[in-house]
Amino acid sequence: MPWRTVRNPYEPVRVLSDDHVEHIHRASLRLLSDTGMRVLDAGARERFVAAGCTADGEIVRLDPELVESSVASAPSEFTLRARNPERSITVGGDHVVFGSVGGPAFVNDVERGRRPGTLAELGEYMRVIHQLDIVHHEGGGSFEPMDLPAETRHLDVVHALIKHLDKNWQGILLGRERATDCIEMVALSLGTDRDGLAAEPALMGIANTNTPLTLDVPMAEGIITFAEAGQAVCITPFTLAGAMAPVTLAGALALQNAEMLAGATLVQLVRPGAPVIYGSFTSNVDMRSGSPAFGTPEYTKAAQASGQLARRYRLPFRSSNVTASNTVDAQAAYESAMALWGAVMGGANLVNHAAGWLEGGLTASFEKLIVDAEMLQMMASYLQPIEVDEASLGLEAIAEVGHGGHFFASPHTMERYETAFYRPLVSDWRNFETWQEAGSVDATERAHRIWRRMVDEYEAPALDPAIDESLTDYVTRRKSA
Amino acid sequence: MPWRTVRNPYEPVRVLSDDHVEHIHRASLRLLSDTGMRVLDAGARERFVAAGCTADGEIVRLDPELVESSVASAPSEFTLRARNPERSITVGGDHVVFGSVGGPAFVNDVERGRRPGTLAELGEYMRVIHQLDIVHHEGGGSFEPMDLPAETRHLDVVHALIKHLDKNWQGILLGRERATDCIEMVALSLGTDRDGLAAEPALMGIANTNTPLTLDVPMAEGIITFAEAGQAVCITPFTLAGAMAPVTLAGALALQNAEMLAGATLVQLVRPGAPVIYGSFTSNVDMRSGSPAFGTPEYTKAAQASGQLARRYRLPFRSSNVTASNTVDAQAAYESAMALWGAVMGGANLVNHAAGWLEGGLTASFEKLIVDAEMLQMMASYLQPIEVDEASLGLEAIAEVGHGGHFFASPHTMERYETAFYRPLVSDWRNFETWQEAGSVDATERAHRIWRRMVDEYEAPALDPAIDESLTDYVTRRKSA
Repeated sequence: MPWRTVRNPYEPVRVLSDDHVEHIHRASLRLLSDTGMRVLDAGARERFVAAGCTADGEIVRLDPELVESSVASAPSEFTLRARNPERSITVGGDHVVFGSVGGPAFVNDVERGRRPGTLAELGEYMRVIHQLDIVHHEGGGSFEPMDLPAETRHLDVVHALIKHLDKNWQGILLGRERATDCIEMVALSLGTDRDGLAAEPALMGIANTNTPLTLDVPMAEGIITFAEAGQAVCITPFTLAGAMAPVTLAGALALQNAEMLAGATLVQLVRPGAPVIYGSFTSNVDMRSGSPAFGTPEYTKAAQASGQLARRYRLPFRSSNVTASNTVDAQAAYESAMALWGAVMGGANLVNHAAGWLEGGLTASFEKLIVDAEMLQMMASYLQPIEVDEASLGLEAIAEVGHGGHFFASPHTMERYETAFYRPLVSDWRNFETWQEAGSVDATERAHRIWRRMVDEYEAPALDPAIDESLTDYVTRRKSA
Repeated sequence: MPWRTVRNPYEPVRVLSDDHVEHIHRASLRLLSDTGMRVLDAGARERFVAAGCTADGEIVRLDPELVESSVASAPSEFTLRARNPERSITVGGDHVVFGSVGGPAFVNDVERGRRPGTLAELGEYMRVIHQLDIVHHEGGGSFEPMDLPAETRHLDVVHALIKHLDKNWQGILLGRERATDCIEMVALSLGTDRDGLAAEPALMGIANTNTPLTLDVPMAEGIITFAEAGQAVCITPFTLAGAMAPVTLAGALALQNAEMLAGATLVQLVRPGAPVIYGSFTSNVDMRSGSPAFGTPEYTKAAQASGQLARRYRLPFRSSNVTASNTVDAQAAYESAMALWGAVMGGANLVNHAAGWLEGGLTASFEKLIVDAEMLQMMASYLQPIEVDEASLGLEAIAEVGHGGHFFASPHTMERYETAFYRPLVSDWRNFETWQEAGSVDATERAHRIWRRMVDEYEAPALDPAIDESLTDYVTRRKSA
């Protein structure tokens, strides 16, 4: 499927009444004003206090009016530049952006098994992402390259992202240094400076609060650094119902909403009008084992409820495509489908981890990347509305074909058949006998063959040698600092 | 998950504007009045002519006003009895009934492979269906028992269904004889007669038109026989876009709608007020090979559009859970998920083939039955709305747990944890190491172990020996006739 932006023409599913949305909203404001946020970063606390909040040690209590007016100053839609201008992405409105998995500790494929990844393997993963046009946004490094030192790893990852892809990629928000490096490097990659970047942002980073009700130092620094530079921040509390959040979805959503509002307020205090995304990651644990679960019915409902909350604040909404499965099997697909329908029909503008996530996010899977790409393409095709007019209804064609005839050779068919239907990437629609004679290859093995071929066929997008050199210089300078 | 009826509290997704619904509606009426239906059965033609339609040989042209007034006399909701009164099902309104697969030629499991099935294996399949409380309705024989003669096979199948299950099961509509046998046997099983059955119907049968625009003799006989007896008929055109229907979804939907309206009109001419279900099965072919495809984006959109059409006529709506995959892999799961979301968020009241369908409906799979049961349970859980009130919001619990704490031992959690979340049937949420140590068993193999155990643990529901004897007598008499 060629590159195209995806828009959602359908009305999102509403799992909450408007009254319930207001009830959750008011409960979050009460949490922020009565219980308050624990803000570990002194700089962030100062900004809250300067805006009139009270601080009791590390506990900051936020005035409801300040929260509401701050959040109202964030844009409801914005564009993030890619180094190929045709691949810039719009976040908000009815736009749907699919991002690849980010952050896992391991990588997995059916040939080499599950293992800590290397920078070379990350390069292979990026080769595939580059060619999957349904992936609009790279998720900030698909897995950690464990062959590199933790301190400077992000520099090599970002440099590799810029070289391998001409798409938009996700910034790393963890602490002032990493955030600053992302900003400097994306500016170099676009041949611009901080002013140019602030005028036309290119970076989006995810900030996770430490649920319940805590904002730690690296995340606060990252939020402030990105907001100062006018780059987008997606505030995503990891509210796991039954563990770090209440066992009820209502309680987990109220907590998520409170933490998101606190983060969004901080962004707006740093730079009014800076882009903020409402991030939702409410899921639940298995109450027998304490293990986190993903792509559950609770996850789906929470995603759609979060979409309603995000729209209440006129903020772009982020959800995810997740599963707890340890392998690319039926469970991985049906849990991902639950998550994906929750996201898309929840009105998500950004589906993070949309391709490649496995094993509760601990692993990036090569085969899952391909299976997810198929699911995303199907979703994008579903989002193209049915055309209804005299020509498409084709009553004359039906009359011509007549009773008991067929439409194979009808002019109405011949004019349209090449583009009429979605063409699959992984799905095998052959009959059983043909499929069996060809070796009874299942979807996961077919996905394996597809990504292997894509790695071989990859062609790097052209990059101005002067820009590449400036990036190499930056990385070298930073490593020796 | 214990037996319970499922209701859908959410508003269905609308993929068509109201104008488009009307446009398709008017196009179908034009097809029926201008091109007409080819009705092969003389008895059915006579009924149309008696109501004022013109017949030109086998071609019957239907007056739009007759169609509209006939369809308006069908009920929007009705109940079908089961021999266990607690398992009777309501079809229509916001009720969602999940039915098991019906009709395949083959059966499949990972141990014995794909093969023509026997009555003994059908017994195994029914043992599993009996225990899956999420399956509300048996689909009329999960696969054909090929060890029995075709002429009288339906008698043994129906007898087996009644003995193995206390649920509602689907009637067989193919021809007057089979339809009559189903009616007589269901009456015997419930200790009632035809009057009792007409007052409280128990049977529902699927009538497929021969697309395009043809109604054959066996189906017409079945429709008339069921309607005369006041039993429910689900009119389901098999409008495969690009083959027997136009390549456009609008055209395929107009054709589906026309054929459904013709069938529903016939039912109402036979017995005004007899229950009718709007059946939809619009899918598309692979234009390169001509193979039918299932669970495609087109399928999903067509299902949701059909739901809008069904609601326009205030008829209960039937959709399905389908896939073209030849094995229970990721493709089977993601195609089924597309179909299931199309059905459920299309407002389907009956999801036919909801559990067990594989390989484009050619095979009933034991493992797919279990995987589908998980997907249906997840869907049923998704359809339970989020509770939002002061108690569920739990602001006091959040304040008590405090910043950075956890909710594991909170009273708010302890009071609710046992029933807070969906508990899976197949999904494995253990971490990778534990899963690997236990043998890296995937979802399909886990499903295999589950149904094997269920076959062993099955206990037949009690059946009055006098009823069983009367059924045996009926079957013996019919076989010797």
